[in-house]
Amino acid sequence: MIGIAVVGYGYWGPNLVRNIAECPNAKLIAVCDLRAERLTAVSARYPGVVVTDNFEQVLSNPNVDAVAIATPVSSHFQLAMRAMMAGKHVFIEKPIASTVEEAQRLVDEAARRNLVLAVDHTFVHTGAVKKMQELVKDGLGGVYYYDSVRVNLGLFQHDVSVLWDLAVHDLSIMDYVLNERPVAVSATGMSHVTGQPANIAYLNLFFPGKLIAHIHVNWLAPVKVRRTLVGGTNKMIVYDDLEPSEKIKVYDKGITVSENAEAQRQNAYQQMVGYRSGDMWAPKLDMTEALSSELREFADCVINKKAPTADGHAGLRVVRILEAATQSLAQRGQVIELDDVRRVA
Amino acid sequence: MIGIAVVGYGYWGPNLVRNIAECPNAKLIAVCDLRAERLTAVSARYPGVVVTDNFEQVLSNPNVDAVAIATPVSSHFQLAMRAMMAGKHVFIEKPIASTVEEAQRLVDEAARRNLVLAVDHTFVHTGAVKKMQELVKDGLGGVYYYDSVRVNLGLFQHDVSVLWDLAVHDLSIMDYVLNERPVAVSATGMSHVTGQPANIAYLNLFFPGKLIAHIHVNWLAPVKVRRTLVGGTNKMIVYDDLEPSEKIKVYDKGITVSENAEAQRQNAYQQMVGYRSGDMWAPKLDMTEALSSELREFADCVINKKAPTADGHAGLRVVRILEAATQSLAQRGQVIELDDVRRVA
Amino acid sequence: MIGIAVVGYGYWGPNLVRNIAECPNAKLIAVCDLRAERLTAVSARYPGVVVTDNFEQVLSNPNVDAVAIATPVSSHFQLAMRAMMAGKHVFIEKPIASTVEEAQRLVDEAARRNLVLAVDHTFVHTGAVKKMQELVKDGLGGVYYYDSVRVNLGLFQHDVSVLWDLAVHDLSIMDYVLNERPVAVSATGMSHVTGQPANIAYLNLFFPGKLIAHIHVNWLAPVKVRRTLVGGTNKMIVYDDLEPSEKIKVYDKGITVSENAEAQRQNAYQQMVGYRSGDMWAPKLDMTEALSSELREFADCVINKKAPTADGHAGLRVVRILEAATQSLAQRGQVIELDDVRRVA
Amino acid sequence: MIGIAVVGYGYWGPNLVRNIAECPNAKLIAVCDLRAERLTAVSARYPGVVVTDNFEQVLSNPNVDAVAIATPVSSHFQLAMRAMMAGKHVFIEKPIASTVEEAQRLVDEAARRNLVLAVDHTFVHTGAVKKMQELVKDGLGGVYYYDSVRVNLGLFQHDVSVLWDLAVHDLSIMDYVLNERPVAVSATGMSHVTGQPANIAYLNLFFPGKLIAHIHVNWLAPVKVRRTLVGGTNKMIVYDDLEPSEKIKVYDKGITVSENAEAQRQNAYQQMVGYRSGDMWAPKLDMTEALSSELREFADCVINKKAPTADGHAGLRVVRILEAATQSLAQRGQVIELDDVRRVA
Repeated sequence: MIGIAVVGYGYWGPNLVRNIAECPNAKLIAVCDLRAERLTAVSARYPGVVVTDNFEQVLSNPNVDAVAIATPVSSHFQLAMRAMMAGKHVFIEKPIASTVEEAQRLVDEAARRNLVLAVDHTFVHTGAVKKMQELVKDGLGGVYYYDSVRVNLGLFQHDVSVLWDLAVHDLSIMDYVLNERPVAVSATGMSHVTGQPANIAYLNLFFPGKLIAHIHVNWLAPVKVRRTLVGGTNKMIVYDDLEPSEKIKVYDKGITVSENAEAQRQNAYQQMVGYRSGDMWAPKLDMTEALSSELREFADCVINKKAPTADGHAGLRVVRILEAATQSLAQRGQVIELDDVRRVA
Repeated sequence: MIGIAVVGYGYWGPNLVRNIAECPNAKLIAVCDLRAERLTAVSARYPGVVVTDNFEQVLSNPNVDAVAIATPVSSHFQLAMRAMMAGKHVFIEKPIASTVEEAQRLVDEAARRNLVLAVDHTFVHTGAVKKMQELVKDGLGGVYYYDSVRVNLGLFQHDVSVLWDLAVHDLSIMDYVLNERPVAVSATGMSHVTGQPANIAYLNLFFPGKLIAHIHVNWLAPVKVRRTLVGGTNKMIVYDDLEPSEKIKVYDKGITVSENAEAQRQNAYQQMVGYRSGDMWAPKLDMTEALSSELREFADCVINKKAPTADGHAGLRVVRILEAATQSLAQRGQVIELDDVRRVA
Repeated sequence: MIGIAVVGYGYWGPNLVRNIAECPNAKLIAVCDLRAERLTAVSARYPGVVVTDNFEQVLSNPNVDAVAIATPVSSHFQLAMRAMMAGKHVFIEKPIASTVEEAQRLVDEAARRNLVLAVDHTFVHTGAVKKMQELVKDGLGGVYYYDSVRVNLGLFQHDVSVLWDLAVHDLSIMDYVLNERPVAVSATGMSHVTGQPANIAYLNLFFPGKLIAHIHVNWLAPVKVRRTLVGGTNKMIVYDDLEPSEKIKVYDKGITVSENAEAQRQNAYQQMVGYRSGDMWAPKLDMTEALSSELREFADCVINKKAPTADGHAGLRVVRILEAATQSLAQRGQVIELDDVRRVA
Repeated sequence: MIGIAVVGYGYWGPNLVRNIAECPNAKLIAVCDLRAERLTAVSARYPGVVVTDNFEQVLSNPNVDAVAIATPVSSHFQLAMRAMMAGKHVFIEKPIASTVEEAQRLVDEAARRNLVLAVDHTFVHTGAVKKMQELVKDGLGGVYYYDSVRVNLGLFQHDVSVLWDLAVHDLSIMDYVLNERPVAVSATGMSHVTGQPANIAYLNLFFPGKLIAHIHVNWLAPVKVRRTLVGGTNKMIVYDDLEPSEKIKVYDKGITVSENAEAQRQNAYQQMVGYRSGDMWAPKLDMTEALSSELREFADCVINKKAPTADGHAGLRVVRILEAATQSLAQRGQVIELDDVRRVA
């Protein structure tokens, strides 16, 4: 059993608080927010919990083993660093930080102090994404492509572009599901409101082999779409997060490429590519609330000194792609090598 | 009433033949194909029609006013040039030619000889696309974006990439629907079968203003999708070609951007962007077979010396984008200015 | 501003309590439940509210103007009668009572004492059903049929059949939407678990004219369906409650019957019936939470001595159909005249 | 190889002719129709085939082993009887005849003369229905219910009601798929055009055990629906004929009823019924054209003296239900025992 303090009781904080309060291996010790009325709301609901607007008080509380940070992304780095310097384990809302440099320094600090650093990539704890990861690992064969669309008429953000708001979900899922890592990124997009960040964006991810990935995000679409296609040599997946129950559909479809050397020499293509079309299958999914599993795993990692599914490295990889994509978008899709997006010395 | 000869009686030719045979202002004079068994099939069905494997015989037939070409794209240029040199009007399967240079020369030749040159961009004659064009012209407001997805488990082509096979449809529709012309193009994609053209591709189109367009085509998808989103300042359209009847849906949705100067100075964005969500509306569509309208229009253009909806210039614009996209795809999405894709002197 | 007490804090009670607490013209005075732990839950959340397990205490509280009853249906009658005898207005969960006799006595008592008696037919306060009612009243023309399907893999009830659990929703909606009243009922169905009430049922409603209505309810379906079709002489409606936003679709479709007397005499039917197919239209719907509007209306009715949308008579009409249908179902669909289903003298 | 003559070259006849012409074990010998222009159309397409407006000429042709009848239903009986009296095997469009009496006499005649009598229940030869039949036979467990909806804005018929036009499909499928036979029928419905047959109908089928079946047909619906639900003790099926590929979905869902005697005695129902929810699975279906398989089977039955899948008995069973349902519909859903619907002595 570990003690956790939540910092930030705005949009997402209440979900963390509720789930920690019900977590079998964690105890909600304190909630910190600068707004008095938010703290009053906490006290009304969770009478035994310490409330404070003073982060130092959280850090000096010996019952607090870990800090869960749900504040605006610009403050993630400072709060997380101070927490780790006070010896606390850290759980941070996605994206883990505003820049690659910040994310890298968080990862380094956690490693140096042997602390658990987790990023709240909530989707990777859903039944649908866990199933997709299993299928990619075993059954799909080699992955041909990963294609995701996440569009709706959404809340325009004024501090971050649609990449940091929506594509961050796809990137965190993709980071978990695929066994390969992208080496370069390009992005195009547009801001349709003067002076504001891009509200539509298309993101390409380049890999060493024949895998290709693409993400389409849009705050200005008339319909809501949350759909990912993953094509493999043996099977193909459609993951539709808006489906009430059959979110994952596995298609036994694909192509068969003949190895006939003679045919290939003659470029007799028609004889080379065949089509396979078999059953479709929608596996039953674990319906546990993702955040609940995730926080239990975090507490378990703190107790048993393990790395969480989405650790600081995962958070860093996602931020690296977002930073590169943002840079590319400003240059009409210039390809950015991910190795070039690193901490400033 | 004009006389038409059809060249090429393979996959699409029979559709041309059937529609010309029923066309009120055209008469089917001849069908030309190199394969004897194809000609036999024509004779069985259309006893009065001349059949021949000799293209010169078609050209020398004084009853033939126009030639409809439905052969592989590599032969379009030669056949069309010969037809025009024989004084025949020309109707060509899309894409109009294999290269910008060829397409440009066809356009020039038609202009010089004052002949009608039409390209078979069939979709622009469907009720759905005509309605979309009307809506964009009047009702949608300024266009924010044009986004199209055309994917399925399809027939891999060995001579052209998925761009020339599938994106050609989207480009011809977009050319007709939008009032603006792209200035540059980039494309990414992948061939998953060694030695073969790309079977998945993502195409970006850049415009002078704030309009952005994107096309996703894929021969290797587990599900069939034919969906275009067009976002405008006043309304938004979803065009789903797989819907049996409500192919076009118009959403009275969008954002309202406050003009408040003070708010803008303070970057008080939350007060600036509002959301509008009203009725959805699926207009009744003209259900006439597109090819039938198209051929009637072609005959009418020949008779009355008019330019068809999809003329040689439209065919050329589409081929210019395809050529640029092909070039970009080979360079990991390098932006290609369309002005640079021109006829070699 | 009226004072309300809620009786029963089980499944639905918390929704009543939450909405009354936020209601501008009502004040939550007391909550009554026999289970101590339920009352503790109320106190934690609503510190100023009286909690009690003694219904008499509620009735004697002078601040309580009205009682909202959310207990099992078998207790509705007794609790509502006692409340009215104590001079309280009453709001009752659907169905209003277990039998026609009970429902009739409640209606009579409310009339005698000049009290407001409302039944919680929640759906009639949704934007979708309100829009459907407007359309039927003005635009649809004469109604040909009303057809509803409400099936899913649901919670089997052991005290009531699927008619009282699911069809009650359709009947309350239909009662509100249609201008005509059924005169007879038949129902077929089956219990697939020995000793338990029917889990699948089909209900026919007969009207004086050419209107026909049918309801299909099922607790044992593999998919969830909530769909109502209403066919009219001018327009037709599809109401799909599972659609996230376009719940109501209006089709400008129908038949036109020629009045040609000669043709009719010759029974030249082909010339008599034509088909019309025009636009489809999904009107924007009011998204206010139904229960919130409903409770505000109830308070307003108490204050201004008005009848609510779903009053005791509506509750009685629905129960009369349910009782007749239950009787019919036991007799393999014997038609039951609704006039015969009345209070035992 | 058998010789077949087709009688009636109207709406469906051309499909029979085309499929017989391509059938490996049958030869198209003759086509008979009273309309000269229809015969001309046959000759143009199938030059070697005998065309005639004289049915006797068909019957006296020694090359004709079997006659396929695709004329209006009112003539089925006379034509089929004459064909059988001339020693010809018979294949008849559905419904097999206009009345139970006629159908019974056809069955008797075929038996007496040892001729093959087949009814064109086309759907039972589709991959979807064959798969459904296999699943019901092996895998679904006991069948709880069979529920089918077949509605659209359709062609009003003036000689038969919607039951004989649309429900005939569901009844022929159900007859093939279920192992049990209904014992009684009731139907309600309405004609919305004065003097015309019912255009909407609801049909109940009663079985000896706990199986219940229901069919909803409607010519006046704004949307097209072709959906059948089959609930079993082990699995449940959704058959949606409008789905382009996944027409059959099998749900591993259901209830588990506890056998606990104590719980049952206490009527502790909550402990008795549990829910099961597992994978969904859409099996690959045979995509062969149904009519092609069906005619090959018919020829094979003639050659090898076998009974076809849909024989005269199947045709008779369907007509018996239609006749009973028609009778019930006229009596507001009076239950009709199928045993009472028999040949008049």
